[in-house]
Amino acid sequence: MRALILNCTLPTSPEQSSTEALLHVVAMAMRQDEIDVDVVRVVDHDVQPRVTDDDGVGDAWPAILALLREAEILVIATPTWPGPTSSVAERVLERMDALISETDDAGRPFAYNRVGGIIVAGNEDGAHRVIADVAHSLIDIGYTVPGQAWTYWNMGPGPGPSYLETDHGPEWSERAGRTAAANLAAVARALAGRPMPAPGD
Amino acid sequence: MRALILNCTLPTSPEQSSTEALLHVVAMAMRQDEIDVDVVRVVDHDVQPRVTDDDGVGDAWPAILALLREAEILVIATPTWPGPTSSVAERVLERMDALISETDDAGRPFAYNRVGGIIVAGNEDGAHRVIADVAHSLIDIGYTVPGQAWTYWNMGPGPGPSYLETDHGPEWSERAGRTAAANLAAVARALAGRPMPAPGD
Amino acid sequence: MRALILNCTLPTSPEQSSTEALLHVVAMAMRQDEIDVDVVRVVDHDVQPRVTDDDGVGDAWPAILALLREAEILVIATPTWPGPTSSVAERVLERMDALISETDDAGRPFAYNRVGGIIVAGNEDGAHRVIADVAHSLIDIGYTVPGQAWTYWNMGPGPGPSYLETDHGPEWSERAGRTAAANLAAVARALAGRPMPAPGD
Amino acid sequence: MRALILNCTLPTSPEQSSTEALLHVVAMAMRQDEIDVDVVRVVDHDVQPRVTDDDGVGDAWPAILALLREAEILVIATPTWPGPTSSVAERVLERMDALISETDDAGRPFAYNRVGGIIVAGNEDGAHRVIADVAHSLIDIGYTVPGQAWTYWNMGPGPGPSYLETDHGPEWSERAGRTAAANLAAVARALAGRPMPAPGD
Repeated sequence: MRALILNCTLPTSPEQSSTEALLHVVAMAMRQDEIDVDVVRVVDHDVQPRVTDDDGVGDAWPAILALLREAEILVIATPTWPGPTSSVAERVLERMDALISETDDAGRPFAYNRVGGIIVAGNEDGAHRVIADVAHSLIDIGYTVPGQAWTYWNMGPGPGPSYLETDHGPEWSERAGRTAAANLAAVARALAGRPMPAPGD
Repeated sequence: MRALILNCTLPTSPEQSSTEALLHVVAMAMRQDEIDVDVVRVVDHDVQPRVTDDDGVGDAWPAILALLREAEILVIATPTWPGPTSSVAERVLERMDALISETDDAGRPFAYNRVGGIIVAGNEDGAHRVIADVAHSLIDIGYTVPGQAWTYWNMGPGPGPSYLETDHGPEWSERAGRTAAANLAAVARALAGRPMPAPGD
Repeated sequence: MRALILNCTLPTSPEQSSTEALLHVVAMAMRQDEIDVDVVRVVDHDVQPRVTDDDGVGDAWPAILALLREAEILVIATPTWPGPTSSVAERVLERMDALISETDDAGRPFAYNRVGGIIVAGNEDGAHRVIADVAHSLIDIGYTVPGQAWTYWNMGPGPGPSYLETDHGPEWSERAGRTAAANLAAVARALAGRPMPAPGD
Repeated sequence: MRALILNCTLPTSPEQSSTEALLHVVAMAMRQDEIDVDVVRVVDHDVQPRVTDDDGVGDAWPAILALLREAEILVIATPTWPGPTSSVAERVLERMDALISETDDAGRPFAYNRVGGIIVAGNEDGAHRVIADVAHSLIDIGYTVPGQAWTYWNMGPGPGPSYLETDHGPEWSERAGRTAAANLAAVARALAGRPMPAPGD
């Protein structure tokens, strides 16, 4: 079983990323469960704004899409400033929109029997909105979102330190992250054992 | 296998409900799949605004909750005027909030291995937002939301006729409703076959 | 100049309300600015689920609506459990929907030249989403939402104490509340001085 | 008085844009009202993902920001596929986040006494959610969002033709667009006549 975690933080490598610190907890838990995990920092790649699979020369989306095709588990990890989903995460979901009409030989949409999760690290309020928005996009494409397949960190109210700058509340976020990893794996395995059929008419 | 569909329309019975007309398609598809389906029009009952299981004498929530406990599949069906989720649906989700801390003997949250879906009938734009909001609340409580486990109807832009007053686009909504029924059943059965474990530490 | 603050908390009086504690800061700032402020705890009244002005005998909405008609400034104060707007606030906004088609003698929608603000007190993340949702409903009806006409409090991540149970961060929330009061008053006065016209064709 | 309309469509020029067709109605109405209107197709410029004013060599944001500084009226025009705000619009709002802490000599945040509006052209449901999200971001930064300062077009349910491909309902969207233009101008002028003060303590 393979997982792909897309880090949708804004700064490019090697700049430090709170989102990366939190997603690391989820990745570690998955690896201990014998799941192969790829982590891609999307902003290090030049993903063009389009709604097709491939935008031609210079577009980095096809390479990320190749990893996504191999993964039964997809996790979108994103910061929030302050409130909405990051533009990098929105771009990923926009590009994934082309997968809605893609089916396998049995007529099953690409994302059926795959599962999706969400990680949000903001220094201010906004995580539940981001989880709602990303979960919605994933479900729309056909991913199944398991119960409590998310974690988040923030510290309100108003502006404040980031996840890496304070010791406020990481235990809760880390425990929720391990639960998310377990739930994603459990539902992915249940669907592998008894897959969803293709839609009828 | 049992399903509970909560019709969160605003008018009480016997007034006509577009939401009911659309949820009927989903209920029919489930029954053909040998799933027992209960449909409750929530507004006919006096559900009090609280975040506990039981608000005492006169509160109708415990009766609805009893049905909800028996159902592996929950569908929230709601209208939208214009944009947000109906207050009746929000109240149901608020009351369900008490289920977050309820676990079975194995330590599993109440909603694990149960699945949730969404039906929206508005005469104006707003369905995707409602689907996002309701899916988020369900996932938060621990329900798994299968890929494409929703349907909606509307006709934009601006105010216009309701689902029962026009023949604009019902086929798409009905087909999406049958797909939602199939996906809810498939994921519920997969989870029955190989259940999610209790969260660890 | 008059303001109406609707406390959309779930528990009825005299139970303690964190939302009330935070809205008190806004009310005090308005009164110091010579604005008459009414505060109504909506759940103490029996507001029926409808989208009309008056639901007949036993419906408490007409009384609240009468206060709302006198107020140039409307503030929706709501808790969040965990994530969405409270069902009480959604019901208020649903009932206000009937105001969309009401105009004065000059053809101006009811809410033109009135301003709206938002207060959110949750013990967990969700405030920005609630602010977005309530602001949207107000703008939809025709209210103008001034810049930074909101405040919120929460303390994440995950469940935790409420506003009245901790001394975490109230200064930021209170200062933002005073700014919201000033901005609501400033924009209401600007619009009183130079009102928006009726829509053309 | 100056307005800046940012077209946040995904395809670059000269590809046809439904969003552009709808924003043209708003731009025309503003020009007839003697407002100078700039229209920028953001995707034609290389706006980098950052939360600062200037990302250095090759970043096109400073040029757009210069126009934004001159405009009392800002309109975000965006498509939706299917549901969320476009990644291009999210990027603009992310870059604008740096304006939150910028004040004039009197201590007033940059966006005070400026107004914001929203235009959404999707071929499917999602406009109200986008309006809520963008309005929220603008209000957060300090822009005032006038009542009914938005328009949208879509045609549901499910996938379908775009605004430029059908004659379904453009009159409603165009009339709402002219109203939005008038309301943005009216509130901008009211605020110019009697400006919001700087926040106190």
